[in-house]
Amino acid sequence: MHEIDLNKIIDRCDLVNDINISNSKITYLKKKIRVEKINIDKNLSKLINKRSGKYISLLFEDVTDIDNRNNLVNVLTSELNELLNEKHLVGKSSLVVGLGNNLSTPDSLGPKTIDNIITTRHLFLTSKLDKNYSSVAKISPGVFASTGIESYDIIKGIIKEIHPNFLIIIDALSSTNIKNVNRIIQITDSGIDPGSGVGNERKELSKKSLGIETIAIGIPTVVNLHTIVRDLLKDYNVENVLKNDNNNYLVTPKEIDFVIEKLSFVLSKSINNALHKLTK
Amino acid sequence: MHEIDLNKIIDRCDLVNDINISNSKITYLKKKIRVEKINIDKNLSKLINKRSGKYISLLFEDVTDIDNRNNLVNVLTSELNELLNEKHLVGKSSLVVGLGNNLSTPDSLGPKTIDNIITTRHLFLTSKLDKNYSSVAKISPGVFASTGIESYDIIKGIIKEIHPNFLIIIDALSSTNIKNVNRIIQITDSGIDPGSGVGNERKELSKKSLGIETIAIGIPTVVNLHTIVRDLLKDYNVENVLKNDNNNYLVTPKEIDFVIEKLSFVLSKSINNALHKLTK
Amino acid sequence: MHEIDLNKIIDRCDLVNDINISNSKITYLKKKIRVEKINIDKNLSKLINKRSGKYISLLFEDVTDIDNRNNLVNVLTSELNELLNEKHLVGKSSLVVGLGNNLSTPDSLGPKTIDNIITTRHLFLTSKLDKNYSSVAKISPGVFASTGIESYDIIKGIIKEIHPNFLIIIDALSSTNIKNVNRIIQITDSGIDPGSGVGNERKELSKKSLGIETIAIGIPTVVNLHTIVRDLLKDYNVENVLKNDNNNYLVTPKEIDFVIEKLSFVLSKSINNALHKLTK
Amino acid sequence: MHEIDLNKIIDRCDLVNDINISNSKITYLKKKIRVEKINIDKNLSKLINKRSGKYISLLFEDVTDIDNRNNLVNVLTSELNELLNEKHLVGKSSLVVGLGNNLSTPDSLGPKTIDNIITTRHLFLTSKLDKNYSSVAKISPGVFASTGIESYDIIKGIIKEIHPNFLIIIDALSSTNIKNVNRIIQITDSGIDPGSGVGNERKELSKKSLGIETIAIGIPTVVNLHTIVRDLLKDYNVENVLKNDNNNYLVTPKEIDFVIEKLSFVLSKSINNALHKLTK
Repeated sequence: MHEIDLNKIIDRCDLVNDINISNSKITYLKKKIRVEKINIDKNLSKLINKRSGKYISLLFEDVTDIDNRNNLVNVLTSELNELLNEKHLVGKSSLVVGLGNNLSTPDSLGPKTIDNIITTRHLFLTSKLDKNYSSVAKISPGVFASTGIESYDIIKGIIKEIHPNFLIIIDALSSTNIKNVNRIIQITDSGIDPGSGVGNERKELSKKSLGIETIAIGIPTVVNLHTIVRDLLKDYNVENVLKNDNNNYLVTPKEIDFVIEKLSFVLSKSINNALHKLTK
Repeated sequence: MHEIDLNKIIDRCDLVNDINISNSKITYLKKKIRVEKINIDKNLSKLINKRSGKYISLLFEDVTDIDNRNNLVNVLTSELNELLNEKHLVGKSSLVVGLGNNLSTPDSLGPKTIDNIITTRHLFLTSKLDKNYSSVAKISPGVFASTGIESYDIIKGIIKEIHPNFLIIIDALSSTNIKNVNRIIQITDSGIDPGSGVGNERKELSKKSLGIETIAIGIPTVVNLHTIVRDLLKDYNVENVLKNDNNNYLVTPKEIDFVIEKLSFVLSKSINNALHKLTK
Repeated sequence: MHEIDLNKIIDRCDLVNDINISNSKITYLKKKIRVEKINIDKNLSKLINKRSGKYISLLFEDVTDIDNRNNLVNVLTSELNELLNEKHLVGKSSLVVGLGNNLSTPDSLGPKTIDNIITTRHLFLTSKLDKNYSSVAKISPGVFASTGIESYDIIKGIIKEIHPNFLIIIDALSSTNIKNVNRIIQITDSGIDPGSGVGNERKELSKKSLGIETIAIGIPTVVNLHTIVRDLLKDYNVENVLKNDNNNYLVTPKEIDFVIEKLSFVLSKSINNALHKLTK
Repeated sequence: MHEIDLNKIIDRCDLVNDINISNSKITYLKKKIRVEKINIDKNLSKLINKRSGKYISLLFEDVTDIDNRNNLVNVLTSELNELLNEKHLVGKSSLVVGLGNNLSTPDSLGPKTIDNIITTRHLFLTSKLDKNYSSVAKISPGVFASTGIESYDIIKGIIKEIHPNFLIIIDALSSTNIKNVNRIIQITDSGIDPGSGVGNERKELSKKSLGIETIAIGIPTVVNLHTIVRDLLKDYNVENVLKNDNNNYLVTPKEIDFVIEKLSFVLSKSINNALHKLTK
């Protein structure tokens, strides 16, 4: 009987929480939400195969509970405010991007969040708004397999035409741990690889590739089947029972449509709050 | 080390193909579609925990291929015609029902099929149509967790008001074998349990409970995670690695949105053909 | 030159506000919302061709303004509470019905409102909820031309199966006055004729026809083209310039999609408040 | 009593058929579809306030009839083939753009057509397709009031990144004649002004502004209310009865949702045929 060679199965994971890191992490609890902050420097970046940058994770319980949800909006708004402040982006013009496929429930987090983002750029073009508002535009670029155009090309093209000061990108992520699904919001200034979680390599979306500050906000909504199976078997001396095509199967909670609706509400409300100072 | 007690994990499966039956099956190949027909009598019914009745299964390859898809429409139309003929339902009035949740991609097969069913009942109420058409009405009752009403109650209520001669019910099923997902159309006159595949027990929809002939057409679009895990482990003497909540996770192919679109096209086109004699 | 014979053009209107009534009306202003209450008795009913019963109209300004919108939610919640109280329906079980066509923007008010109604009937079937909640189920029956089934038959059928204590029916109305479009919420206990505003006669939905208290909540979202044309010409001695087919054209404000979203928010939030005592 | 000064009301119209032109027009009947071709040169362009270029109009009867619809697909495919051939665009790479608002039924023609456009650009990037296929990408840029970004900026940006050889742009138009609504397909190489029909001036989309051949395909789906009213009154010496805000009201046929579905089918099928030589 052979050991499974775990190294042969290279897992893509979008979540820094999926990796055990001994590095110094800042951790605190705010309104029952656990906040973890870590900076991944170049050395660590190579070691764990995650882009270097700042990672803020909000760990929460069941978001279908209204109290949890309101707490989450409060904490996310406050963390976004802090990040925008740190990066001198308060009041600056932004483009909010919702990655993903509106027709596939677990992948619809980005487009569904975009639906409720309040845009103001068209109003700023003709008049002056209240100083609480900043100029916000938005786009859901769709998916490569449908449009035939990479998200990168659409976003890069729009940036060149309308020159926003920074990007906020929302995407559904994949996790290697089923316990993290729909339980973590990850904010990072290191950018994102569209579709990376589901194994489709695309041009990265980042400050480096796009030329402007890029804040990515993601929530894991799926796990690859082969990841779960490997994980379940890791303590046993069993042969590799993985079928190759397991890589093409996704695992989601049954009630995913209901949860996505609540998660997209949390993201759109918090982003609107942070960009427009709608609440203190 | 303990053996896994498979009996403790009671799998619900909607597909007769998931069960090994030695009984006499009629099997033939038509336009590359494998057709399997089996009658489950009362004795067998108890043995395998499937309702007694006639089961027709169409086994096919990738439905995103246009030739496969057209073949499938031809074979399904012809099998439906034969069944309607056998049951003396040709030209009789029908209610076509699409079970499932339009907001959850793998569960949206029923509602998406209903979108393209051609209804004529409203026209028959005021005038006489061409004899090729039969009176057809349709409904997507939604899901219990959303409407607060069981599909059974909605359908039973409508039947009492409009008195159709028979029902056609479309539903996404769950399989115990990932190889069957999106690869089998199962037609049966034995009725259906809404949501049974995903573990939510509901009042059965059948000739017995509803009082009229009930033809159920289903396609497996998901597998429960715990089924897959158990299946993968069945040849190994390993401990039960299943987490309880695995029962709440569904496994679907990544490209499910695209496949559901094609499958719902096949079902609606074939049903329209059979009910309205749109093609010979 | 002939006078236009206005009597030959029989307008259907859904709004009591479209008719000049000298009868005693109770009128007051609450948070900038004008509330008008009138009882139409049998005599008046014949005279003006409106069903007898209680009519409560809320007249408001632009609902896309957030302050107007919040005021409207407050006043509508309070009027609904008062009506439920008067009719001894507080805490009783209800079925909320959204009439109309989700695919046609001005007619989608009912289905869009239903999307956000909080249902509890399925929870009450298995457990006891907090006393603030009442048992609520919901349905969007679709439109006759699509389903082939009259809304009446679907609703009547469901009532017989699940026995709610009362109905709340939401529908987009038509007005004869373009100034009323998207500016009035009409609540009545006299029931509703589905599709009446757009000239499609259907079985009435009322306490009389359905057997249980029926509260209809409607908002005019369209005007028939021929009504507007006639109205514009009424002071001139011109020939009848109306084309017959003008009766098949509807007039809506350009920004109807945006307004419907806000109006359906107001209705669903107020109904949820009133049925579940979510706010005081 | 004053005459109405028609000149003071400048109507925007998108249809060349709305204008009486005595110039030489090529006209023929093909499968019951009337085809009209006209070249507008610079002089005529100034006179009638329409951009210069080639205009091909297909005039047809009720598209909800299946025979009319199939005829229309045949004729449109053939006219598109001829135009692509003339302009040496056969086999060249294209970007298909659907302008308009998916949430507003009469304005959803563009996005709904895009839904069914077959894209291949992503496949060409990794492999060689059958020579019948050309490289096709697609985008629905959404509307300015929602995204805060002009369609021009999105399209221009994408063109710069992916360099298609030509554009096909689909848009719902407005007409000044209610008889033309849903009865004409207009193809032109002169470009389009997004939202012009409904009075919102935007940057033009044309070969001149975008740098590549731009074929616009439009169908009138609305008429402005004030246009209809003025039209009805033009033979009478009556005062201007137009209210200013009539400019904000649109007139559509009642059954617009059903017609848009059929029209978008005709457009997507014909464009797919022409770009991919799917039928001869």
